[in-house]
Order: sequence, then structure tokens, then C-alpha cells
Amino acid sequence: MDNRPIGFLDSGVGGLTVVKELRRQLPHEEVIYIGDSARAPYGPRAAEEIRQYTWELVRFLQEKNVKMIVIACNTATAVAWEEIKEALDIPVLGVILPGASAALKANLKGTIGVIATEMTVASDIYRQKIQSLDPKAQVMSQPCPPFVPLVEANELQSSLAKKVVYDQLKDFQGKVSTLILGCTHYPLLRPVIQNALGPEVTLIDSGAECVRDISVLLNYFEINRGRDLGEQQHTFYTTGDVEPFTQLAQTWLEEAVRVEHIDL
Amino acid sequence: MDNRPIGFLDSGVGGLTVVKELRRQLPHEEVIYIGDSARAPYGPRAAEEIRQYTWELVRFLQEKNVKMIVIACNTATAVAWEEIKEALDIPVLGVILPGASAALKANLKGTIGVIATEMTVASDIYRQKIQSLDPKAQVMSQPCPPFVPLVEANELQSSLAKKVVYDQLKDFQGKVSTLILGCTHYPLLRPVIQNALGPEVTLIDSGAECVRDISVLLNYFEINRGRDLGEQQHTFYTTGDVEPFTQLAQTWLEEAVRVEHIDL
Repeated sequence: MDNRPIGFLDSGVGGLTVVKELRRQLPHEEVIYIGDSARAPYGPRAAEEIRQYTWELVRFLQEKNVKMIVIACNTATAVAWEEIKEALDIPVLGVILPGASAALKANLKGTIGVIATEMTVASDIYRQKIQSLDPKAQVMSQPCPPFVPLVEANELQSSLAKKVVYDQLKDFQGKVSTLILGCTHYPLLRPVIQNALGPEVTLIDSGAECVRDISVLLNYFEINRGRDLGEQQHTFYTTGDVEPFTQLAQTWLEEAVRVEHIDL
Repeated sequence: MDNRPIGFLDSGVGGLTVVKELRRQLPHEEVIYIGDSARAPYGPRAAEEIRQYTWELVRFLQEKNVKMIVIACNTATAVAWEEIKEALDIPVLGVILPGASAALKANLKGTIGVIATEMTVASDIYRQKIQSLDPKAQVMSQPCPPFVPLVEANELQSSLAKKVVYDQLKDFQGKVSTLILGCTHYPLLRPVIQNALGPEVTLIDSGAECVRDISVLLNYFEINRGRDLGEQQHTFYTTGDVEPFTQLAQTWLEEAVRVEHIDL
């Protein structure tokens, strides 16, 4: 038993898709979230810069005395997960292995598509992880640079969003049977993405898959929060403006959230 | 990546229910299994004796150079899981927390029933783990001492099996909405148990739930076996007679198995 909060970090609001799934599966756990919206998107940045920013977010969460850290950002996971997991004495989860593993289970034939940020695609990490599990798996990856700015601007279902998504995904049409949403921002565009590819394509939400892993690791390390502790004090921090973050978070999570600005 | 086998231990053949689920979910992993049929059942034994036997099985698996140990026996998990997990530098999984956690997720109202061996019920561990996760959960436990001998004798669907199961479960009828099969032998009696309680009762197979956790921990510790290594050399050891073990294992797993006798 460990009643401390779980810490989530992301380049911005994308990690909220992981928090939403956590609220559904593990509603008694408490959340501390830090989104680095002032410096989002991470995708086009250099690896060393992403690494440094990610460590700043990790140290912030450590000061908040979290019991587990979830790197709810594919780009940061690609660059820094293994190193942070090694360095910390609390469990540290990334979103890439849960997504890769779920895609392999879902995809019995055909090609697995991966959409992600430039850095995640350039790191080739999804293909590597998928093929380390199954060398015969076919993987087709593509960066979708306009998606994170769309989501950070709360353009989720607009005609602009539809146009951009259709345009970005045209090379995947008819080519993939499973598509990994390899950036935690992308599930916010899920209905539009599903429409663009058709109902027969299975979408894998790397963040949602990650929550199943959180649940197992809370059990394994015996650090669940008691269900009798009453209301939690979730706190969301952003390095950017409080107002747009709050609006998007409340719409997405369908609950009131407390958001504070923080300078790192 | 770690291509060594996963070690399973059980008091006898019950742990095969966990192996069957592993073969389904993670067919590329290799298995070393040790069943202590010569000293089964563990349920009526003293805790110190069970602890000592379990350590003997663990040491046997360590000599086989396994990458993970699954205590595929509720009784041994109840007595020795935490201690063994602390002592070893490879991951050690038990079957109780996965079962307790799955039951809580499945059981939205009503009472959770637990059937297990005498020792597991006396340890009160299922009730403790369930109520540590949710103090308001109602739990009703009962030992079913005749079940393990029935299974070890391969009496799975016989009229004797039916009579014994109906008789043992009569206090649960109409009282529980979820029933944890808190002994890895019991899923072999699943159809008879389901018949005895009716289709509206959700049966939780603690061993099958455990396999989902195995999958997550293989990812988390990055010790999956490559899927391109071809046929595995599963090996099953029993401290008892090879013939009945082989017969039951082949029927249950629906594949040819290699069984060797071993004295501990």
C-alpha cells in the first residue's frame, strides 16, 4: 500500500489521454501531472534537448514525492525511458513497449502502421521494439508533425482537423491493418483518424495500453492506493498558459481540474 | 531480450492451468515446470513445511537458469511469495494479487466468493488483499479440500467430480456474484463449478489473470524471448509418477509434453 500520487509527464496536453484511461481503470489513484506546453512540441527538437527537458520534468515530479512516474509522451520515452528507469528507485513506465506489444497481439496479419512525432519516427524505436518481439512483423512508420499543434490548439473535430488528418494519413489508406497512435496527443484526434482510415483498421492507443501496465506494476510492487481514502487531490501543472490547458483538460477528462502554472 | 525459460512451480498439476494460458497468450516463451505431486496436496500442510517445499522448488528452478519464477500455486503464494520475491534478483510472480485484483474489477456489486485450499483460506490472504484494495468489498471464503485430490486423479468431469463439486459449493449458491478459483487446480473443474453455481456467476481464474501480469513484467524488465527462435524445449518435471502427470498434461495442454521424474 502506498497512498502517494502517480506522476505523469508530457510535452503538453497529450498525456491527458493516459490520465483519462487511468481515471477509468483506477479511479482511486491520485495524479500529479506536468505538461511542458511552453516548450511543446518535443517532436522536432534534438534528442539531447528532449532528454534534458524530460529530466527536468522527472525532477519536478520527484520533488512532489510521487510513487511511480509515467512518461506519458512517446518522444520522451523514445529518448530517455531506459536511462530514467535505471536511475530512479521508483518504477518508471514508458508508453512505447505497451503500444508495441498490444499492436502485435491485435495484428494477426498485414502491416502495422505507426504514426508519431518526427523524433519518435527517426528513433525507429517502434519498429525495433516490434521486430525484437517478432522479427517477421511488417512495420510502416510516418511522422505527422501537424497533429500535436492541432491538439494543443484544441482543434479536435474541426474541418481543419479533418483536412489535416486525411492529408497526413493518405499513404496509409488500404496499406495497414493496425495503426499505433504513437504519440499521446493523437487519441484526441481518434474519431477523425478512424474515419480517415476506415472502420476495419484497429487503432492502438499507446497511452491506454500503458494503464494496464500501471495496474500490474502497482500490484507487483504493492503500491496501490487504498480505495477508502476518499477524494483525491489531483493536480495538473503546465509550463504554459493555465486557461487553454484547463479548458482542454476539463473537456477531455469530463471533470473539474485544478491547474497551476509552473516555471521549470 | 532474454531467451531463457520461465520457471513455473506448483504442488502438482494445478499450475498447468497457468501454463495453458501462457501457451495461448505468449506462445513463443519457453517453460520449465516443476510439480511436487509426490507431496501434493499442500493445502492441509503446516505453513513451515509448505515454505520449505516451495524453497526447494525455487532452488530447482534457479539451477535451471530461469529468467522469472511463477509461483503457480495459491497455497505456496500465500505462504512464501513476498519472502521469495525479496530474496531473488529475478522477477517472482504469485497468483493471488492478480486474482484479487481481477475479481474487484469484475465484481461491481454483491459478494466475492473465494474457494481455495485449507491453508490459503486459513491465511485469509484473499480477503486481506481484496479489502486492502477496497475495504468495503464483501468476501466469503471456503476451503474445498476434496478438489485437489480429484484433479490429481484426473477426475475432471466424472459423476464423482460433479457430486463432490455440487456438495462443496452448496453454501455459495445464490450468495456470490463472482467466485475466485483460488487454487490453480480448480480451473480444471471449471465447467462443473460453473454448472453448480449457474451462468450468472463470474468465475475468476487466478492463474490466467497471472499470465497478463507475466506479459507486462516481461516487457517492463525487457526480458521477452525472441519470436524467431523456433521451437522451444519445454520441460516438465514431477516429483511423482511420470505416467499420470504426462497423461493429464497432454490432455489439458492439447500438445505432446516431455515429462521427467525428479527427486528433490
